[in-house]
Amino acid sequence: MNILLNNKIVPRESFTVDLEDRGFQFGDGIYEVIQIYDGVFFEWEAHLERLVRSAKELMLPLPAAINTLYQNLQLLVKDSKVTNGTVYIQVTRGTAPRFHAFPQKTEPTLVAYVREMERPLEQMRSGIKVVTAEDIRWLRVDIKSLNLLGNVLAKQKAVEQGGAEAILIRDGIVTEGSSSNLFSIKGKQCFTHPANHLILNGITRQVVLRLLKNTDLILQETPFTFDELLEMDEVFITNTGQEICPVIQVDEYKIGKGTPGVYTRLLQSAFEALLGSVISI
Amino acid sequence: MNILLNNKIVPRESFTVDLEDRGFQFGDGIYEVIQIYDGVFFEWEAHLERLVRSAKELMLPLPAAINTLYQNLQLLVKDSKVTNGTVYIQVTRGTAPRFHAFPQKTEPTLVAYVREMERPLEQMRSGIKVVTAEDIRWLRVDIKSLNLLGNVLAKQKAVEQGGAEAILIRDGIVTEGSSSNLFSIKGKQCFTHPANHLILNGITRQVVLRLLKNTDLILQETPFTFDELLEMDEVFITNTGQEICPVIQVDEYKIGKGTPGVYTRLLQSAFEALLGSVISI
Repeated sequence: MNILLNNKIVPRESFTVDLEDRGFQFGDGIYEVIQIYDGVFFEWEAHLERLVRSAKELMLPLPAAINTLYQNLQLLVKDSKVTNGTVYIQVTRGTAPRFHAFPQKTEPTLVAYVREMERPLEQMRSGIKVVTAEDIRWLRVDIKSLNLLGNVLAKQKAVEQGGAEAILIRDGIVTEGSSSNLFSIKGKQCFTHPANHLILNGITRQVVLRLLKNTDLILQETPFTFDELLEMDEVFITNTGQEICPVIQVDEYKIGKGTPGVYTRLLQSAFEALLGSVISI
Repeated sequence: MNILLNNKIVPRESFTVDLEDRGFQFGDGIYEVIQIYDGVFFEWEAHLERLVRSAKELMLPLPAAINTLYQNLQLLVKDSKVTNGTVYIQVTRGTAPRFHAFPQKTEPTLVAYVREMERPLEQMRSGIKVVTAEDIRWLRVDIKSLNLLGNVLAKQKAVEQGGAEAILIRDGIVTEGSSSNLFSIKGKQCFTHPANHLILNGITRQVVLRLLKNTDLILQETPFTFDELLEMDEVFITNTGQEICPVIQVDEYKIGKGTPGVYTRLLQSAFEALLGSVISI
């Protein structure tokens, strides 16, 4: 398999990183995951814009202009022969003698690789069970950084308890999933946590906000509690890989009737139609 | 230069890590830094015990028994010919296709290297200026993990403002420094934040707690506020490299008379005597 290393496509085996790469010692880096449908990147501008934002927030210089990066990613996908899957892109600050503050002059390390992946259609059809976990992450999760241990431990708890995702609760408030955003619906109100420093503003989340405008749902970007979550008619999560995925159970509590709700189905159909309009699936 | 890679001493240049090493993608790993004085590890049992604790908290299997690791570290230091400096040890969970939850079977990656380093005697004599920063780190900083962006951004702020360290404030409470613990003295009371999930229980911190027993200071392991900090007679930080280092200014505020305090000097002398009793410096 080949990967993109800075501006070159090289064999994966030839990738080396110094042990003092700041990504390896501090998690000092950022990433994006872009979905590929039928060879086409979905929402690539939004993903690369967010990469630029994350870099800016961490004062991390990107090693290439976004257009160059986009062209290189296209070459990488073509080279991989993968038509459906994801491309993972990561930028770390580069190598320097270990000291917490930013080094003066380093060359950032950009690496990207493609992975074949099926859409999780069964989960999207039947819905998933999720478990709750305390949101112990740092207070800048709006930056898509490599400091992911809080997310890792939550997802691990979910897996151990037979859940497909962990829903994070901070001070009683439902923030998001360990690798997804969360929406909930009560009557005609659709709730999701505001996009501040306590959540990662997902690209699929942003797509859903646009799709909501074509429904009779009223968007409420406002915090809600765990108790309120359990009283919702419908709950779903969004992320790049799982798209819009119904949540039918939270811990031991059924959501609504314990089956995917009508508005969730409506939004899934709208998302599918959007895919059909930009690519041929 | 040679490094320790798992159980072998190998040239640094031969170190490679897969791009899907979880240390590189999630910061999913732990570390320790041990000081070497005159070829002797200082407090190595305490450091390696803490490594074991960090590993246990993250359910991360260590690749070698502690005694084997200790022997390998001794070989590494001998090989390096460094007599005064530090050894950095890092363990990451190993390589697996990227997914947040723990992979089933991975080989952890242990890497260690030695760095020559002088004791920062000038700082220890004259004292340092520190700046404050909001403590935005995750809620398990008691684990010495590779998720260090909160510490990195705080230290960067300190450097930009001419400070030698950043003092972190969470909800008005002084927790610790970005890479140190903090002590303060008022009258005969010596305050430091309790060793819970909000601070890293430093090895030098623990040494100071022992040294305090030989003084007439009364230890108060209790949270205190930023306003209370400014009213203290003396403030100092502790860490492996800086040992006990007086703080003479916080932001624009002088601490006490703006010179290292008498108890800080007393503790520095006691620390020096302790070094003399275990090694020949």
